[in-house]
Amino acid sequence: MRAIRFGVFGSAIILVSVLAEPPDSDVGTKIQTVLRAQQEAWNRGDIDTFMNGYWRSAKTVFVSGDEVTRGWQKVLDRYKAKYSDRAKMGTLTFSEIEITELSNDSAVALGSWKLKRAADEPHGRFTLIFRRFPDGWKIIHDHTSAAEQK
Amino acid sequence: MRAIRFGVFGSAIILVSVLAEPPDSDVGTKIQTVLRAQQEAWNRGDIDTFMNGYWRSAKTVFVSGDEVTRGWQKVLDRYKAKYSDRAKMGTLTFSEIEITELSNDSAVALGSWKLKRAADEPHGRFTLIFRRFPDGWKIIHDHTSAAEQK
Repeated sequence: MRAIRFGVFGSAIILVSVLAEPPDSDVGTKIQTVLRAQQEAWNRGDIDTFMNGYWRSAKTVFVSGDEVTRGWQKVLDRYKAKYSDRAKMGTLTFSEIEITELSNDSAVALGSWKLKRAADEPHGRFTLIFRRFPDGWKIIHDHTSAAEQK
Repeated sequence: MRAIRFGVFGSAIILVSVLAEPPDSDVGTKIQTVLRAQQEAWNRGDIDTFMNGYWRSAKTVFVSGDEVTRGWQKVLDRYKAKYSDRAKMGTLTFSEIEITELSNDSAVALGSWKLKRAADEPHGRFTLIFRRFPDGWKIIHDHTSAAEQK
């Protein structure tokens, strides 16, 4: 009887382990850390390190206005074209970040962004869809919108 | 031996069933159906039925520009204020819809929207996060952006 019970229990555990990854107990903190690293990289003028927050894939999506940019490399190119010098990059602040877990390996972050520059202060909101990869949580889909410029 | 095998297998199945809902085999079609119903309701001037696509919750989020609207009722109020008559509603078309499953009960839809009106044709993109509820797939988070008006 003991052998049977162990067999049942052991097999069930193995089967469940194969089917479901264990949940990440600290999703919120990990995603906040990714966003803090992005903000710090941006404010050092380091767009390449900023891009570490994104999934390095041709499927990564960045949406803004009526424009969809597809693929990690194209997203990098867009940032480098749009923020071609330190003055244009300004000082980035993320705030009001709210993280909602969708599953063991996916979550959404809603937040505010602001660029402080000599000439203006563009600002708006972002919705980021994160997935968990072996090397950590990464943005797979970024939808960013801006307040209308006055 | 046969009894033991059945025990192991049966228990494992029960355990897995308790832990994980079965996947929805037809997520894409179901979400497309929700969006088609929204488009049709809008084009009948029926914002209340259009709102059936959203999760009826105080946590439902609608993001646009620098604005976050929270809660199903507030999202409805915003639509009714912004599109207060049939001419303002115009004719809505959704297109280029791409659905990515995130888990058994969550998915993201990226798409284009366009309003055809007498005076103008506003258009842009949306990112919709859907969750599966007992009464079907519903939008829990909508980030919509528009092309700059010319």
